[in-house]
Amino acid sequence: MNFRIVWRTVGTVLLIEAGLMLLPLVTALVYHESPVPFLIPMAATALVGFLLSRVKAGRGVFTAREGFVIVGLSWILMSLSAAVPFVLAGDIPNYLDAVFETVSGITTTGATILSDVEALSRSGQFWRLFSHWIGGMGILVFIMAVLPLAGDRSMHIMRAEVPGPVVGKVVPKARQTARILYLIYLGLTVAETILLLCGGMSFYEALLHAFATAGTGGFSTRALSIGAFGSTYIEMVIATFMLLFGINLSLYFLILIGSWRDAVKNEELKWFLGIVLFAIVTIAINIRHIYGSAGESLRYAYFQVASIISTTGFSTADFVQWPHYSQTMLVLLMFVGGCAGSTGGGMKVSRVAILVKDALTELRRMLRPRSVVQVRLEGKTVQPGTLRAVQGFFSMYILLLLLGTLAVSLDGTEFSTSFTATLACLSNIGPGLGPVGPMGGFGFFSPGVKIVLIFEMLLGRLELYPILLLFFPATWRAK
Amino acid sequence: MNFRIVWRTVGTVLLIEAGLMLLPLVTALVYHESPVPFLIPMAATALVGFLLSRVKAGRGVFTAREGFVIVGLSWILMSLSAAVPFVLAGDIPNYLDAVFETVSGITTTGATILSDVEALSRSGQFWRLFSHWIGGMGILVFIMAVLPLAGDRSMHIMRAEVPGPVVGKVVPKARQTARILYLIYLGLTVAETILLLCGGMSFYEALLHAFATAGTGGFSTRALSIGAFGSTYIEMVIATFMLLFGINLSLYFLILIGSWRDAVKNEELKWFLGIVLFAIVTIAINIRHIYGSAGESLRYAYFQVASIISTTGFSTADFVQWPHYSQTMLVLLMFVGGCAGSTGGGMKVSRVAILVKDALTELRRMLRPRSVVQVRLEGKTVQPGTLRAVQGFFSMYILLLLLGTLAVSLDGTEFSTSFTATLACLSNIGPGLGPVGPMGGFGFFSPGVKIVLIFEMLLGRLELYPILLLFFPATWRAK
Repeated sequence: MNFRIVWRTVGTVLLIEAGLMLLPLVTALVYHESPVPFLIPMAATALVGFLLSRVKAGRGVFTAREGFVIVGLSWILMSLSAAVPFVLAGDIPNYLDAVFETVSGITTTGATILSDVEALSRSGQFWRLFSHWIGGMGILVFIMAVLPLAGDRSMHIMRAEVPGPVVGKVVPKARQTARILYLIYLGLTVAETILLLCGGMSFYEALLHAFATAGTGGFSTRALSIGAFGSTYIEMVIATFMLLFGINLSLYFLILIGSWRDAVKNEELKWFLGIVLFAIVTIAINIRHIYGSAGESLRYAYFQVASIISTTGFSTADFVQWPHYSQTMLVLLMFVGGCAGSTGGGMKVSRVAILVKDALTELRRMLRPRSVVQVRLEGKTVQPGTLRAVQGFFSMYILLLLLGTLAVSLDGTEFSTSFTATLACLSNIGPGLGPVGPMGGFGFFSPGVKIVLIFEMLLGRLELYPILLLFFPATWRAK
Repeated sequence: MNFRIVWRTVGTVLLIEAGLMLLPLVTALVYHESPVPFLIPMAATALVGFLLSRVKAGRGVFTAREGFVIVGLSWILMSLSAAVPFVLAGDIPNYLDAVFETVSGITTTGATILSDVEALSRSGQFWRLFSHWIGGMGILVFIMAVLPLAGDRSMHIMRAEVPGPVVGKVVPKARQTARILYLIYLGLTVAETILLLCGGMSFYEALLHAFATAGTGGFSTRALSIGAFGSTYIEMVIATFMLLFGINLSLYFLILIGSWRDAVKNEELKWFLGIVLFAIVTIAINIRHIYGSAGESLRYAYFQVASIISTTGFSTADFVQWPHYSQTMLVLLMFVGGCAGSTGGGMKVSRVAILVKDALTELRRMLRPRSVVQVRLEGKTVQPGTLRAVQGFFSMYILLLLLGTLAVSLDGTEFSTSFTATLACLSNIGPGLGPVGPMGGFGFFSPGVKIVLIFEMLLGRLELYPILLLFFPATWRAK
């Protein structure tokens, strides 16, 4: 393990985080709130970050291992520091609760321990929703975009932080790729903010909800989430942007450079839209009797399906009150999640597609044991290494889901609550079923279960390995 | 597809089934009940079986494909015919319900649609519990043991009917293997019957419960299941035999020929016992406050853990009333199931072990992308083909579980009910949580959902492929 490069990079991350705290600090000043809750952790984080970033680089290697450890450690330390302002401002007096809320923010989960989100300070609210935006694309990808970080080896970091079974570079250089993706991310966020302003939202709320949509987070300034605005226009804008952020962002690059056809041919996109369509139609039929007209049913179904499959977690209705088919359909969408290279969580559409295709391929192998039958995606054969990695990921995902469910059940919640609370955290959705539904929250869990769920959120956002490897002794051994 | 060999063999199966109906027919005569409900289907099945078995063998090939189709078709036709006596005797007037109960019997699931099991005729009850015994080891394995069936190619049938990722032959010849396994099966059943007689059970109930234990089925003659006998001795005998039948039966052969050490060294057995021990201890602690003493808690925990992991489904307590940790632990055991080569259902311990090891191996691969890291089980490297098959099986299992849950939810049952009802059928357990718990039943489901669950049970017992391939057009195409 090349500790020097690890600490140096983690130091840079903390410095950048301190810099990002300037934004809520300014918000505090604008709204005549005390800047002290941000000033103190900002100074401390900056100091620690500065000292760490002064570690000499040395000559050590930089492999996948260092990439994972940098990302895992950065996200944990960042969360521990970013939680402090909530405590100091009195918004969330309990530090563990503040860490839960912060991790839920940067992992873009959107599960809240707050019973009254509207009581938060303006600057605290800003920090809470802005964390979705930071976490959505990833802080290390952000740093790569703006700083010369680790040179050619930065792909190791990108692989560890960007979701999906295979990380593709849009352009040959990792740094350029990071820049292009961040610009697209920024552009879409600005576009959504403007469209929300047109719908009559205040600038503050438009910006914050655009942050939360872009990161596919799901925190809202309102207790009733997006339903609070009572505007079909706002709902349609947000639902559409949730879907847009659930799609591989590099497809927008293809569109920008004029390769429309390549973007539309994308097989993962077709799976994504196919699943979305099936879910919307069947849910709309299932909830028809609640909302009276087909139009109203489609409106609610469209919003909730977009919200869950993109793993955002906003709501316009308390879907826990819907018929059980609709609830179960939403739970299934929680497994799927967004596309690879999107800001969405879950297992990712391409992994699900590969697993379904492989399961069907196994049938063909049964008929012709000696023939070579291969899984194809995006017109190419899925490489054995990729297939093996997707399957290993899937086993680990289900294992972490089931063990998490068991741990959560120690708090005495019934199976569907324990299961969906864990799944909602692991897939970075936010709401689950029962007491952790859209109008409920995670505040009632014991400290032990909260810690379990904090790890489930981090595991989900970083796609398991950067966090798991931290607890794996071999990671720390010298080579 | 070699249709001749398929129909010939299916015909033999039906003939044997007609022969097996002699037993409940004799039971009917002994208890002065009408033999007609058995006589009519017996004659019809024998006639159809006889005609099919006269099909000329021809010169066609006999490959894995024919093995799957023979097993899949045999089980479906056998169920449709074995359900008739329940209707004719008036025990289960509705034919679909009778098919559900029959499939639940031969797949050794033990999920019932009956609201009053004690109202059944003696001969109907015998047929219901005897079906567990037939289904436990498999009817085709039985035929292989007694008839010269398909010669050397019979391994294709054995592979399709015997559970586990790899089917090992105890002795070089498939037919000898089938004979040895059936003798062990019979011996253990007789031993349990005798031990239950010693506990004061009537011969009729002792024999029937030994059938249900041996097949890891779970039907009982009593509404309160094994709890009805109120005897710690009977509970301990049955719990122990449930575990014994959840273990690979070929290990008993090793013990019989004196290879004690090889049997004890079995890695799958260690995983099985490890999981059992963990579950018993933690559940006993969790239910301690209900039963007062540690001894009583262990007694209930031992029985229920043995019952669920062996996928039998007997109960001595309404575990739906237990704290949620215990319920969730039992749900996790439903995934695992028995060992390969046992009569238990579920995914099988060895598959779970391979998947867990592979998921951990993926961590090692992350650290050393270029090195070759392999999964080992039973002291040997798991072959790439086996690993791929286990992973394909796992994906398909979870897919069928989730799609089944979605289908069941159309009946308006809440998530935990839909999920555990499907899992309990797919893993051939019997009871799930909520209304399908040990004191509940499956009678309230709509005909559509019952059909879905019938298929889940068949899919689970035959380990997916013999049933799935029937719906796969390529199976029927000429080669």
